[in-house]
Amino acid sequence: MVLVSPRNPLNIGAAARALANFGFAQLTVVAPYEPHWDEARSAVGADAVLKNANRTGSLAEAVGHCTLVLGTGTLTYRKPEQPVVKLHHLAPLVEQEMARGGRIALVFGPEKHGLTREDLSWCHALVEIPTHPDQPSMNLGQAVAVCLYEIATASSRSASANLPESKAAASSAHLELLAGVIEQNMDAAGYSPTVMQQANRHDLRLLLRRLGPTERDTRRILGLFRRILWRLEKGPRGK
Amino acid sequence: MVLVSPRNPLNIGAAARALANFGFAQLTVVAPYEPHWDEARSAVGADAVLKNANRTGSLAEAVGHCTLVLGTGTLTYRKPEQPVVKLHHLAPLVEQEMARGGRIALVFGPEKHGLTREDLSWCHALVEIPTHPDQPSMNLGQAVAVCLYEIATASSRSASANLPESKAAASSAHLELLAGVIEQNMDAAGYSPTVMQQANRHDLRLLLRRLGPTERDTRRILGLFRRILWRLEKGPRGK
Repeated sequence: MVLVSPRNPLNIGAAARALANFGFAQLTVVAPYEPHWDEARSAVGADAVLKNANRTGSLAEAVGHCTLVLGTGTLTYRKPEQPVVKLHHLAPLVEQEMARGGRIALVFGPEKHGLTREDLSWCHALVEIPTHPDQPSMNLGQAVAVCLYEIATASSRSASANLPESKAAASSAHLELLAGVIEQNMDAAGYSPTVMQQANRHDLRLLLRRLGPTERDTRRILGLFRRILWRLEKGPRGK
Repeated sequence: MVLVSPRNPLNIGAAARALANFGFAQLTVVAPYEPHWDEARSAVGADAVLKNANRTGSLAEAVGHCTLVLGTGTLTYRKPEQPVVKLHHLAPLVEQEMARGGRIALVFGPEKHGLTREDLSWCHALVEIPTHPDQPSMNLGQAVAVCLYEIATASSRSASANLPESKAAASSAHLELLAGVIEQNMDAAGYSPTVMQQANRHDLRLLLRRLGPTERDTRRILGLFRRILWRLEKGPRGK
């Protein structure tokens, strides 16, 4: 599980507690606010989960090894670019990913405003907790508990226990490598002006996650684009 | 939802927030610790749920009007006398009770030790949150959120949407009235010595909730026992 820039040390502790409650161990905290992070970790009775938590500077780094990245949040104030899955319909997706040996990351944004559009560009889907329109915003620690509960019980809920075996999905880091090479191709081919670069990377990320190439697909496409790039940079073939 | 003697005002607030998040409104607090109760209710930004919460002196009073009373807790330190239902298997039970027009209470014990054996004697079943053996005990606010989430999504999970219509269950208060009359019968019939009274009431409560008589059943059985009691107290019929 990944917490992006959490502020409240009580929430960090509560998230760690929920992980332990449902038998999970891996917590990564992205760019925490230092004083509160130290406070949470040094709290009396801090869980082993918290003591062993990773810390990274970016979300990209935190989810680099993962094959299914799930953002969380409410949809009240945003129109998501990713597919939206209701939390109570998540079980088959989780089951399938586990069955093919994937690594899942569940990502929570800061308390105040949740995940940004940039954060979400690393996500394959947005998980929506079905809260009431009158009070859609959940406390972070409680949202974490509800999501982990759903994932922990997914295997005993999922009707489709015998899913067909499918190939391993590409990791987040591998997809980003591909996006980078494609972007270089675009540049080299004069496909877009430099001012569009940021937007292109964002859209590329969304596209690649929507397509969901396997690790092998990704290697192949990467090979192709590297070859094209080499050709583009070398200039037109001499006759 | 019913909270029995909660201590931490943050937990009371978190429980109220979770109710609002999942579209529930009724919170009853049994015998709260006064200073913390006042603090929680007067907190800035306290939810409408908290401001409108009921307060009762006893759990019996809090669940009097309910037809399905569900206690919550972990099973680590106790051997329950009630049927145990795993939280993620609760949906059909909730659906059925709603379909027949019942009123459900979900009961949470104090943070330190949970519901007592006496508290549980008012419950038809004990709901077990499937936590990990290494860290079974959940934070109260998080446990509340997880349970309410499951109940709120029950209708969209339950495969058995077309349950046969069944009769309305007897309310908790009505069952207790019956238990009282049966006990009077036992006394009058010399069925048990006075020192056993407390134990009898406890066992009677468990038995009646296990049997689950409808409102009409309960009225009938009550009528029978009242008649027997009258006869017992009047003495043997004169020839």
